[in-house]
Amino acid sequence: MEALRWEGERLYLLDQRELPHRVKYIPCTHYRDVAAAIRQLRVRGAPAIGVAASFGYALAAFNYPEGEKRPLPEFLRQAARELLATRPTAVNLRWALEEMEAVLQTLDGKGIEEIRDGLLAAARRIQTEERERDERMASFGASLVPSRAHILTYCNTGALATAGWGTALGIIREAHRRGKEIHVYVPETRPVLQGARLTVWELQEAGIPYTLITDNMTGYVFAHREIDLVLVGADRIVASGDFANKIGTYTLAILADYHNCPFYVAAPFSTVDLTLKTGQEIPIEMRDPREVREVGGKLITLESCPVLNPSFDVVPHQLVTAFITEKGILNPPYEETLAAASREGDGG
Amino acid sequence: MEALRWEGERLYLLDQRELPHRVKYIPCTHYRDVAAAIRQLRVRGAPAIGVAASFGYALAAFNYPEGEKRPLPEFLRQAARELLATRPTAVNLRWALEEMEAVLQTLDGKGIEEIRDGLLAAARRIQTEERERDERMASFGASLVPSRAHILTYCNTGALATAGWGTALGIIREAHRRGKEIHVYVPETRPVLQGARLTVWELQEAGIPYTLITDNMTGYVFAHREIDLVLVGADRIVASGDFANKIGTYTLAILADYHNCPFYVAAPFSTVDLTLKTGQEIPIEMRDPREVREVGGKLITLESCPVLNPSFDVVPHQLVTAFITEKGILNPPYEETLAAASREGDGG
Repeated sequence: MEALRWEGERLYLLDQRELPHRVKYIPCTHYRDVAAAIRQLRVRGAPAIGVAASFGYALAAFNYPEGEKRPLPEFLRQAARELLATRPTAVNLRWALEEMEAVLQTLDGKGIEEIRDGLLAAARRIQTEERERDERMASFGASLVPSRAHILTYCNTGALATAGWGTALGIIREAHRRGKEIHVYVPETRPVLQGARLTVWELQEAGIPYTLITDNMTGYVFAHREIDLVLVGADRIVASGDFANKIGTYTLAILADYHNCPFYVAAPFSTVDLTLKTGQEIPIEMRDPREVREVGGKLITLESCPVLNPSFDVVPHQLVTAFITEKGILNPPYEETLAAASREGDGG
Repeated sequence: MEALRWEGERLYLLDQRELPHRVKYIPCTHYRDVAAAIRQLRVRGAPAIGVAASFGYALAAFNYPEGEKRPLPEFLRQAARELLATRPTAVNLRWALEEMEAVLQTLDGKGIEEIRDGLLAAARRIQTEERERDERMASFGASLVPSRAHILTYCNTGALATAGWGTALGIIREAHRRGKEIHVYVPETRPVLQGARLTVWELQEAGIPYTLITDNMTGYVFAHREIDLVLVGADRIVASGDFANKIGTYTLAILADYHNCPFYVAAPFSTVDLTLKTGQEIPIEMRDPREVREVGGKLITLESCPVLNPSFDVVPHQLVTAFITEKGILNPPYEETLAAASREGDGG
């Protein structure tokens, strides 16, 4: 199962809204198809959004119309703006598009064919590197998992979320591969149910024991099932170590704190944004109220019911036991350890 | 809108599974119809279950077949056993059935007509008294609500839950009636969505401003919306002050504690069970996994997905700011204040 694949001038995106009921790929022939898929959460997960946007950017070079008046770089800049505008919280999207723009500059003066090939190669490289980062993270993270462990994870941070091997779920896969006896508790993750639909599916495929719960059962599993560690992903980590992640993550961090349970955050450095100092500066996406009013298109409340639908929580760094990155495990004070690791080369 | 009504030897129960989409009453002609409705959550809420069971017990006297070999008291005892077995956690059910059995004893030697009338009158009295308790609770509780307040409530504790005026939601109604500017945050309350379906409906009907959220947004509203107090109901309160309530309540109590926010529990003494010392002794009902796997009959995950479905949390008394009862507001130490208030007469 691949979250996305390129084939004959098209990007095929696995439609994550349809899982686990149907495995369906969306053929994207235009960069705007990719933008729409990101906006509609058909591809989601901070690293996967970055990878999809890179391919979207490359695709734009294929969409450049014959006889177009704007020069190609301007056309691509417009595509990048539209791709960037799809979702405001995850920073990997911006990071990936900046990488692509840097590659474009190295192709200055080349013919259109060469530019297309160069951008496509860059998108592939971003995906490959994301996968390699996942693998390093998984290896560092698995060392933190006891040989028998009850793990609470959240949302979906697997192969689907990274177009690679996964962040938090990648660590879980690796711990399982190493023969550790783990059991994973999976909150369903309303409103879009990434836990119930995607994480359950990935764990089932991987043969890792798990239990699905509703989001309001998290306190219960802490009280009754002896959770040994919490492992979540991140959509943006800022200089202080505050981070944004799927709505509900803040509650989990407080529950972990109350129960003296380690709370780990797994994310590659493409998720780190040192231009922001504290979590309060992270823009939080507010999504369509219908996502709350409906489940799978079915109305569950009054049609015009007033609703709040923030897509992300910000978690203060004080609640984080450690960050697991491709550069190693970072401990507090995060302001120092994040900055120091950022200065290191990739994989250092 | 009435949660239940008696009419011509039938008990009509408002089908709470169908709300808010349809207002439909279930005609119960046999006590087993009442038992089924309780089991299927068509009538729910600890006090409402007690009231419904009282009417169910009275109904059994109407069901006593001509020529039945067992004497009536034995037939009624069987009905009581079946009604009691429907749900294990809320203690109001047991309390109400014991009240009915005590009334039956006072009718010893009377004719069947007189026994039917006597039991029916007793069920009506239980309902009336439950309503009066609700009103006293509402009055005590409203005094704790600031003149402007953001209130987080949970599940449904309104007129539907008590067949009266409501416990926690009754207090909210009363605070609104007194002209306080309140805004209520309503978590949807998976798996059965009592918040999204029932509390939203009651607040809308009452014209009280509210916002629906998913259960995993509770941390977010504490962080961003300055919650002034949490107001929840209870299904059983034991001698220590530990109490059982809808799954998710434990998480709310920890969130309130973390944010230094008052956490109030509103319940009549029919919910208090001094025969148990600590919350660990409260039996917790585990319900059908399909409630978690489905929303409104629609599968949201893999069909055979392993699931946990406890219907209740137990909250330790240390997390409770005060209990709001029909006998007044009880402060710690609860072991003393609960016992003392229990010894007082009703409404004392």
